[in-house]
Amino acid sequence: MSLIDLSTISTRAPEGLDKDEARKISRKRAERIAELHQQLVAENRHGVLILLQGMDASGKDGALRNVFGACAQFGFRVVSFKKPTPMEFAHDFLWRIHKEVPAKGEIVVFNRSHYEDVLIQRVHGWIDEAQVDRRFASINAFEELLINDAGTLVLKFYLHNSKEQQEQELMERITDREKHYKHNDGDWEERDHWDEYRAAYHDVLNRSTVPWHVIPVDDRWYRDYLMSEIVVNALEGLKMEWPPLVTERKWLMSE
Amino acid sequence: MSLIDLSTISTRAPEGLDKDEARKISRKRAERIAELHQQLVAENRHGVLILLQGMDASGKDGALRNVFGACAQFGFRVVSFKKPTPMEFAHDFLWRIHKEVPAKGEIVVFNRSHYEDVLIQRVHGWIDEAQVDRRFASINAFEELLINDAGTLVLKFYLHNSKEQQEQELMERITDREKHYKHNDGDWEERDHWDEYRAAYHDVLNRSTVPWHVIPVDDRWYRDYLMSEIVVNALEGLKMEWPPLVTERKWLMSE
Repeated sequence: MSLIDLSTISTRAPEGLDKDEARKISRKRAERIAELHQQLVAENRHGVLILLQGMDASGKDGALRNVFGACAQFGFRVVSFKKPTPMEFAHDFLWRIHKEVPAKGEIVVFNRSHYEDVLIQRVHGWIDEAQVDRRFASINAFEELLINDAGTLVLKFYLHNSKEQQEQELMERITDREKHYKHNDGDWEERDHWDEYRAAYHDVLNRSTVPWHVIPVDDRWYRDYLMSEIVVNALEGLKMEWPPLVTERKWLMSE
Repeated sequence: MSLIDLSTISTRAPEGLDKDEARKISRKRAERIAELHQQLVAENRHGVLILLQGMDASGKDGALRNVFGACAQFGFRVVSFKKPTPMEFAHDFLWRIHKEVPAKGEIVVFNRSHYEDVLIQRVHGWIDEAQVDRRFASINAFEELLINDAGTLVLKFYLHNSKEQQEQELMERITDREKHYKHNDGDWEERDHWDEYRAAYHDVLNRSTVPWHVIPVDDRWYRDYLMSEIVVNALEGLKMEWPPLVTERKWLMSE
């Protein structure tokens, strides 16, 4: 596996892709994802775990809305991991995470995840490097367990924004009345640690065995276009089928 | 670490230990365990996970009663793992286990555990050997996570009975009116797989990195004597102290 080097990956959409056309395609794909989700619920054979990670204001909520917005509520859950509660801190870092993983027949989106435990905690020096190493080993064993023991499909997305775009998004939270609720003074403080976060993300992307998808997000329409493509392909890769009719009433089987 | 070979370990108490004297000591130790448990709750710094495994009728319930019976109910839980529910089967095998691990300041006893997933499931061929290997790897990573990330004390007990003693115990469930409720036809069927279970236990005892204590249980009084000794020593090893008084009211601090 070759190394992922974020500094060589553009945060913008590639040249030559028509924005309006791409948006139309993304909407169609969102419908297709909803259909595949129904089949996943019906089949009850696979769980799907979607991890969303990225710097502040990298558009995690919007990705969720635009890529999975057409999915039925039943068999679909979003879990946002914030600062751990005292009860969560009283356990290992994967305890609150493991509880929330998808059952078979369910898509679960983690808005932030166990990777925060080797990101924010590392950047602020709340854990030492020996613990970082142990946590990466634990994370890899944990994800392999989900995949191999439960047949879970694990899709990991890193939402790749630029520092300039982040500033613009954070400023909008101050200037736009309807975005005030998203503002948090702390985000500007974390922004001062941009380089350390990028370095920590470099390890996240390269030290976890289940691969990441890096999604350029400065053009939000391209984020939706690329993510929806990856999700459709992954779900189609499960080769799902509508389950056959199960009945013991013979007459229901006749035409 | 040298291999544990059950065929070389007696299931009976060693010679020269006085039964009545041992019982007296065990009762004292149970009181000491209750005291240490209070300190554990007060300190709120360590969780303790006790795993009880053994063949049917190896005396898990009795061990629980005699070793931990003096502990307060608060900060103490017993979790019995039976046949997985449909929702548990819809997840990886450690999902239902991880949810129940102790928080800091709590002793949790698992009456049977994740090891059943490499015992009964293996003996009956419900999983293949590749999955057995993966599960041992997952189990080791999981227990290391509890120990290293949460500071959990993990104590694992294998209750070592003889096939003859098992028959006697199972027969009592048929002849003793007050033990009828423990009888289960299935136990006699599992007994036919005695050698396969012993082989599977051999791997459990030797392939998991966190060590096991093998407890001879044919003499129940010796089981209590040995287990209580191990538990007292392990809890004392935590070097707990009663937390100091925390107050901002200065006058409370004066004599």
